Amino acid sequence: MQPSDMQISELPTPCLILDHDKLNSNITMMNARMRGHGVLLRPHVKTAKSLDVARLINNGDTGPITVSTLKEAEYFFSGGFDDILYAVSIVPARLERVKTLMEQGCRLKLILDNIDIAGQLGIAGDAMNTQFEVLIEIDCDGHRAGLKPEDPQVLELATLLANQPGTVFKGFMTHAGGSYDCQTPEQIKQHAAREAKAIVDCAGIVRQAGLSCDITSVGSTPTATFADDLSGVSEVRAGVYVFQDLFQVGLGVCGLQDIALTVLTTVLSHKPEQNRLIIDAGGLALSKDHSTASQSLDCHYGLVCDAASGELIEGLQVQAVNQEHGLVSSTNGAMDFSRFPIGSQLRVLPNHACMTAAAHDRYYLLDTDGLLNDCWLRCNGW
Amino acid sequence: MQPSDMQISELPTPCLILDHDKLNSNITMMNARMRGHGVLLRPHVKTAKSLDVARLINNGDTGPITVSTLKEAEYFFSGGFDDILYAVSIVPARLERVKTLMEQGCRLKLILDNIDIAGQLGIAGDAMNTQFEVLIEIDCDGHRAGLKPEDPQVLELATLLANQPGTVFKGFMTHAGGSYDCQTPEQIKQHAAREAKAIVDCAGIVRQAGLSCDITSVGSTPTATFADDLSGVSEVRAGVYVFQDLFQVGLGVCGLQDIALTVLTTVLSHKPEQNRLIIDAGGLALSKDHSTASQSLDCHYGLVCDAASGELIEGLQVQAVNQEHGLVSSTNGAMDFSRFPIGSQLRVLPNHACMTAAAHDRYYLLDTDGLLNDCWLRCNGW
Repeated sequence: MQPSDMQISELPTPCLILDHDKLNSNITMMNARMRGHGVLLRPHVKTAKSLDVARLINNGDTGPITVSTLKEAEYFFSGGFDDILYAVSIVPARLERVKTLMEQGCRLKLILDNIDIAGQLGIAGDAMNTQFEVLIEIDCDGHRAGLKPEDPQVLELATLLANQPGTVFKGFMTHAGGSYDCQTPEQIKQHAAREAKAIVDCAGIVRQAGLSCDITSVGSTPTATFADDLSGVSEVRAGVYVFQDLFQVGLGVCGLQDIALTVLTTVLSHKPEQNRLIIDAGGLALSKDHSTASQSLDCHYGLVCDAASGELIEGLQVQAVNQEHGLVSSTNGAMDFSRFPIGSQLRVLPNHACMTAAAHDRYYLLDTDGLLNDCWLRCNGW
Repeated sequence: MQPSDMQISELPTPCLILDHDKLNSNITMMNARMRGHGVLLRPHVKTAKSLDVARLINNGDTGPITVSTLKEAEYFFSGGFDDILYAVSIVPARLERVKTLMEQGCRLKLILDNIDIAGQLGIAGDAMNTQFEVLIEIDCDGHRAGLKPEDPQVLELATLLANQPGTVFKGFMTHAGGSYDCQTPEQIKQHAAREAKAIVDCAGIVRQAGLSCDITSVGSTPTATFADDLSGVSEVRAGVYVFQDLFQVGLGVCGLQDIALTVLTTVLSHKPEQNRLIIDAGGLALSKDHSTASQSLDCHYGLVCDAASGELIEGLQVQAVNQEHGLVSSTNGAMDFSRFPIGSQLRVLPNHACMTAAAHDRYYLLDTDGLLNDCWLRCNGW
């Protein structure tokens, strides 16, 4: 296929459309924000899982990244990205894959929150004749893994990692998962401050004990967007900002017009007696993420746009999904079925871009002139 | 990889484990049930999307199947399955792919519910010098697409399909989506009766008008399981019964011990202060399907089993999911963390097997002796 010769109307549906301008604009804005803070951006590539998107963040070059699976690490390393933070707790069974990447030249950094596992990494590093670079995960708000910053094990763990020959202590990382429960930007600012403080406090503790601590890593798209002060933070991880989504709109992180990722879909059936359309984007193509249910605007499984312009069609939402069917209802009175003939296309704005993109193997890049100018592949699975 | 040399403990996680005995037993039971009714089983292969599973249903041979995407049709046809019902409303843009399959010898049957689309198929069939075989979709309970059985357009549409040269009228199909809202087997029986009646009534109408009607197709796993009387029905479509899942358990369709599909996962972190484990099966590996929320036993994102035996661990459930993290809580008092060391494996029973399987590209087949005896691939995407 030569996507540059194609119109959106020629694409098989369902598929992912990526608005090139919006993607560029989201990337530019976050790069500028981090430059303003004087902080390194280590984008979390689990959202796009695309070499092309990761290179766009770095002006065509490679740069530091964060991954959520070793498959992503291998994929991005094969594309030249060699400074990788694997931001999911390491378990010993994965060290063979880690070692293979390290031997090929990948500067892969691991995380953990447990002293027994740290000891096992030390032994494995010895046995494999290597040194694993490790960050300690800190839990700043009870949302995921990690030690509490005030836990005495923080220093104990850092000391072990620094002193045993099989590991190198690199620093601390945390993730403000609680920022996703916020109602206002003001609350997100408080989460950003707490996230930074957790990591800066830990760095202070270990430095006072004479250890060096190179990396102090925080991140989430909401806190990266609203943080006032990142003093003492060395790097920020954020992922979904490249695409944005309805959940981020609900948080106030962006506007609807900033969402770069949509699912192109075809109208399959009219159900006038139920005032609804049926489309071919269902629970697989959109994901079953219904995260906006907890926000003031519940978008169910997505809001609906005009396929060509990407403009929101007021009142239409994907009310329910089966595996390959989406049920689109009108909250604005009677559906004008003549506007949406069977066989015509629509686009759906996703609740959660990371989840929606994961069912698809590629992005079709849409230019301002309404033409497709490229097709970028994704790396899925484990 | 030679899976037959491997133990479950050697697998990278997260991944899908398929219990060979349970799969065989689910398949045998549904085959026997349909034989008892004297009705053809046309399994819906959208659940497993696997040639190996489809062949197992047919004792190693091919047979009639139902698909939800043209990609599935192409994949199963390439594996020798040539009697395929594509059970999602056809749109004209897909006719080129349909024609290609037909030219290669695939007896592909299409569905629709709209007279304009039927006319367009007729014109396209003429222009392409072929005849599309078409079933009319009937809506028996307001859950998806289709004409109501009493709609006068049913006869009008059948007549058009039968009389225009570009199409052949093959019959009717419906899907009792409403059976998924039932609380008792008695209610499911009523849905099964309504599903069969809708299709038998339609067949009666068109036969009375002098048309032939070869196929009267109904189906869903709940109605296929509990139907008392399938007189007048020529075939049954059911899909998820091959694997079963927690939602089917909640409906009373099967027991927990019948669920053949589980997600193998690794414990990543302990959070004693929150009484929870963190595992590496998150929203991608399990899906964000939370369908059991509407049932009397809300399983959140899945129930947890011992990895080796597959026995349920009472009180453990996946309470919440992030992209690559599952948060497992204990509803049975304090978690015994010593039973679940970091790095140890568990298995998760899925809410909805079709959605969970879709994030994975393969199944690891587990034998009664606890060894892996095969690895079967899936066909994902569109």
